[in-house]
Amino acid sequence: MFELLKTIDSPVDLRALHVGALGPLADELRAFILHSVSKTGGHLSANLGTVELSIALHYIFDTPHDRIVWDVGHQAYAHKILTGRREAMASIRQLGGISGFPRRCESEFDTFGTAHSSTSISAALGMALAARNQTEQRHCVAVIGDGAITGGMAYEAMNNVGLHKDLPLLVILNDNDMSISPAVGFLREYFSKLKRVNGLGTDAEFFKALGLNYTGPIDGHSFDELLPALRVLKKLHGPQLLHIVTEKGHGYSPAATDPVLYHGPGKFDPTHGIESPIASKPTYTQVFGQWLCDEAEHDPKIVAITPAMREGSGLVEFEQRFPDRFFDVGIAEQHALTFAAGLAADGLKPVVAIYSTFLQRAYDQLIHDIAIQNLPVVFAIDRAGIVGADGATHNGAFDIAYLRCIPNLTVMAPADEDECRQMLHTALLLKGPSAVRYPRGSGNGIAVSQALYALPVGKGEIRRTSAQATGYRIALLAFGSMLLPALDAAEAFDATVANMRFIKPLDGALVEQLARDHDLLVTVEEGCVMGGIGSACLEQLATVSHSPPVLQLGFNDHFIEHGAPEKLLGLCGLDAPGIIRSIETFLSTHDLALSNGSATPNVSLRASA
Amino acid sequence: MFELLKTIDSPVDLRALHVGALGPLADELRAFILHSVSKTGGHLSANLGTVELSIALHYIFDTPHDRIVWDVGHQAYAHKILTGRREAMASIRQLGGISGFPRRCESEFDTFGTAHSSTSISAALGMALAARNQTEQRHCVAVIGDGAITGGMAYEAMNNVGLHKDLPLLVILNDNDMSISPAVGFLREYFSKLKRVNGLGTDAEFFKALGLNYTGPIDGHSFDELLPALRVLKKLHGPQLLHIVTEKGHGYSPAATDPVLYHGPGKFDPTHGIESPIASKPTYTQVFGQWLCDEAEHDPKIVAITPAMREGSGLVEFEQRFPDRFFDVGIAEQHALTFAAGLAADGLKPVVAIYSTFLQRAYDQLIHDIAIQNLPVVFAIDRAGIVGADGATHNGAFDIAYLRCIPNLTVMAPADEDECRQMLHTALLLKGPSAVRYPRGSGNGIAVSQALYALPVGKGEIRRTSAQATGYRIALLAFGSMLLPALDAAEAFDATVANMRFIKPLDGALVEQLARDHDLLVTVEEGCVMGGIGSACLEQLATVSHSPPVLQLGFNDHFIEHGAPEKLLGLCGLDAPGIIRSIETFLSTHDLALSNGSATPNVSLRASA
Repeated sequence: MFELLKTIDSPVDLRALHVGALGPLADELRAFILHSVSKTGGHLSANLGTVELSIALHYIFDTPHDRIVWDVGHQAYAHKILTGRREAMASIRQLGGISGFPRRCESEFDTFGTAHSSTSISAALGMALAARNQTEQRHCVAVIGDGAITGGMAYEAMNNVGLHKDLPLLVILNDNDMSISPAVGFLREYFSKLKRVNGLGTDAEFFKALGLNYTGPIDGHSFDELLPALRVLKKLHGPQLLHIVTEKGHGYSPAATDPVLYHGPGKFDPTHGIESPIASKPTYTQVFGQWLCDEAEHDPKIVAITPAMREGSGLVEFEQRFPDRFFDVGIAEQHALTFAAGLAADGLKPVVAIYSTFLQRAYDQLIHDIAIQNLPVVFAIDRAGIVGADGATHNGAFDIAYLRCIPNLTVMAPADEDECRQMLHTALLLKGPSAVRYPRGSGNGIAVSQALYALPVGKGEIRRTSAQATGYRIALLAFGSMLLPALDAAEAFDATVANMRFIKPLDGALVEQLARDHDLLVTVEEGCVMGGIGSACLEQLATVSHSPPVLQLGFNDHFIEHGAPEKLLGLCGLDAPGIIRSIETFLSTHDLALSNGSATPNVSLRASA
Repeated sequence: MFELLKTIDSPVDLRALHVGALGPLADELRAFILHSVSKTGGHLSANLGTVELSIALHYIFDTPHDRIVWDVGHQAYAHKILTGRREAMASIRQLGGISGFPRRCESEFDTFGTAHSSTSISAALGMALAARNQTEQRHCVAVIGDGAITGGMAYEAMNNVGLHKDLPLLVILNDNDMSISPAVGFLREYFSKLKRVNGLGTDAEFFKALGLNYTGPIDGHSFDELLPALRVLKKLHGPQLLHIVTEKGHGYSPAATDPVLYHGPGKFDPTHGIESPIASKPTYTQVFGQWLCDEAEHDPKIVAITPAMREGSGLVEFEQRFPDRFFDVGIAEQHALTFAAGLAADGLKPVVAIYSTFLQRAYDQLIHDIAIQNLPVVFAIDRAGIVGADGATHNGAFDIAYLRCIPNLTVMAPADEDECRQMLHTALLLKGPSAVRYPRGSGNGIAVSQALYALPVGKGEIRRTSAQATGYRIALLAFGSMLLPALDAAEAFDATVANMRFIKPLDGALVEQLARDHDLLVTVEEGCVMGGIGSACLEQLATVSHSPPVLQLGFNDHFIEHGAPEKLLGLCGLDAPGIIRSIETFLSTHDLALSNGSATPNVSLRASA
């Protein structure tokens, strides 16, 4: 098994093969990817589509001297396997294992870290000009999908590439007519038109207008078409675009038939394919999707917007039931927000479903087009906090910090699924912009009330009251997903616990009350500490006399790697044992004032007991 | 003078005119704009270019029922004058006066606030779909320049527009071959090619590929061409693009000859044109530009990148001296950053010159492509803080909050021009990404040292030491531009003043030392308080026992309007009198602990004396 593949430890080995061996190698490589991903989980459909391309690129180009940049790096598994990481694939996306995306620190063949979409042409152009300015002879190749090429920065990059008429830069448009969901946008029709014209020599004026010399379309699964095309393009001067047609999930019929289901599966048996999952607790994503349908049924002004995340954001049912009110704008976060602003400006109630990490792509639009104009756009911010296997590029680590400084914006964090539903409802009633940030996956499985009721804006609630008469009185101020571990940890100290609910406006009165009644405040959030919500509590208390110390728990000032979410939360100290440990360490190293007159600070003893 | 124009108080008056009156009206309107801007300062060249278009649009379309969205709103003066704000033009961009950009709260004709570039098509598409979903019959028009259309979100929007084949949406490409500087990008050549083909009927496949039906090019200063074209397009179904050719500065030869100089002038005499300004104190922008040339002369690896702000960012000399190392990427902030990352990944030292407010456009690229990979890109962040006449859309209010949460990033704020130079030098020596944020305009005029020396990273300095033996001991922790007013204010309280220099890493030891030795800390920053650098000081002190109260001075939680910078700073309480007032108010309303044993808190008396 994998006899040929086992001999390939680097592209040098690959380039030593006779061209006739590439077909069998591709078969083995495809089987290896299927085998490997079925054991670890990971991205499958996209990687089955780039097997021949990966082989061909490393066969024709002198990697790593020549640079390959893989857009949305989850199409780079074949590349990883061919560049010395075959065995390491068993550890992919796991804590301490290799990343699911190209990473500069992982291999010299990973020229540029890619995970968010549409960055590859910009990066490759930078590399090509770095080579020119240092008089290096080097080819730079960006591989970008037909979904990713609809992202605005790809266009910005192409418009610049054309200016450098002498540069050995090759853009490969990997056209499988898909993002994660089917591709959207008018360009899709244009690409289809190009594909209907068979063979080389089509004059694609769209790319010509951007200064790219177009070649294609060719079959991206055929070495007979790929190798000669790459050989020719390598010799041409100036920016080139090669249009290749591939199939997501190619060679494994369940994935080719349903590339969305096989986009990023967990472990599965390749013989039987992905089994229908046993219904378990609903995810926050599902709670959001259901809520939106429930509201939309009664309010025709509600519309939903997703930047190419229909499945991931839980909008499949909404699209089916309200097709005229559903807008998948493609990989186009910037447009998504300003488009929402336009809808809101003329009386609709847009709900933008977006991941925390992707909202970074539209930060200016949020400030400039929505918040300054105080337009009532609701943001359903999914994947806020740790995402797990996708790692640093995908964690929703910064949204609290980057959102709470924006005037006019209301920001909430639900502690459970029902609160998520009610917060979304609360958001919809507001006259200005608002956001509900909720984590990836499930909560505690609490039943979701069918009723919809508005929460009092800017008000938290006490969920546990300390009965402690002696010793340190501790209050945990928990935000969103951190309520549950905070409640668990509170048992160890008989601490008060508040479910703060609102990131903005903060319940300042509650913070001050807790400060008056306790000897130590502990803020707990699934987000960065710097500038996070703990800091908002500090701002509230900055001028309050005799405030107790505040221990801020959250993400420290570094990027968080990939791995299982629960492990990562543990490493961040954001599970109950971690919270207990942090408090004990604090108590053992700080000399706290005891405001209740007790002489015996016995908390840490009890906690350890 | 302005006899005809005086009769136009709304587009209804305009539409009552015979078509033959439009030419004379355009002449008056153009003269009025020149007259008005020469008295107030403001945007000139762009507004002289849209006189006929503004008249034609309001003449043909039923505004405000039909929607016009003016991209980069500084081309909308004629629109403002025609829609009831002729007299108000005397107050434009001044505190309490009308805005230099369209504003929803200012007029029902201002359908969407526009100031940053490339938003208009997204907004107009939102409005068009809002009309469709509410079964309103309405035309929506986006007017976008050939510079703005190179911004990625315009492309994202066009790719979506094409999907709605029935929508009455008109995009007008106002092609004057300029951004603020001459337009860049390969599309410019494509547009030129279109313009060489005379008359209607050109088949512009670039736009067709995006689903837009192309008409043009036509003369945007000719009513004989504009009116029939708009009448025809109004009746056509589906998304239309009209390519009009205009001249920036049209009708006023100094501006037409040098549209860059007349882009946004101050007051001037129209008869003589803009006089050469008398050399005064250099601006921070100039200090940056000079520094970059000085460094580049000795280090061939240094390259400079600007997203269409060559003049505004002080890069004119750099481009002249180092043309191969200068990259104006057009209005393309996202690309600018990832392109810089690509340059850095392969060994160059990119310096990205960008305004604080425009860096919001590339927030994800900063995190995802630069900070996660820890690439040594230097950001010269201009216009950090109050910008003045451009108002809320352009203030650099949030950068401290949105930058300091990003791991691996070093952020500095210079207190004067020489420190700015040395901080930039310090940034260039770092192994990871770094930013120097400096304000618009000049500092105190301190001489800039030719020498370049690195500052110790993460270290502030004491600039004034309190000699106070009795009463409250106050320390002002000043960041960047706030050092000068802090030093002035300190006299009133005999306060200690620290020039903190580093936003990240914060000089935590200095903060703690000041906390130990003082009864009140006052943080002063030209940026938002929420999540700002004052909060970083709070984070440092959160668990320190017996910390004094911290008064945080900066921007409150609202957007800051347009007006003269010094007036706005005064309103924000960020000049010396404001700082004194805030401290006095605080002292009079709070019961401070006196840690030095003195019984006489006589500070506020002295301050008022």
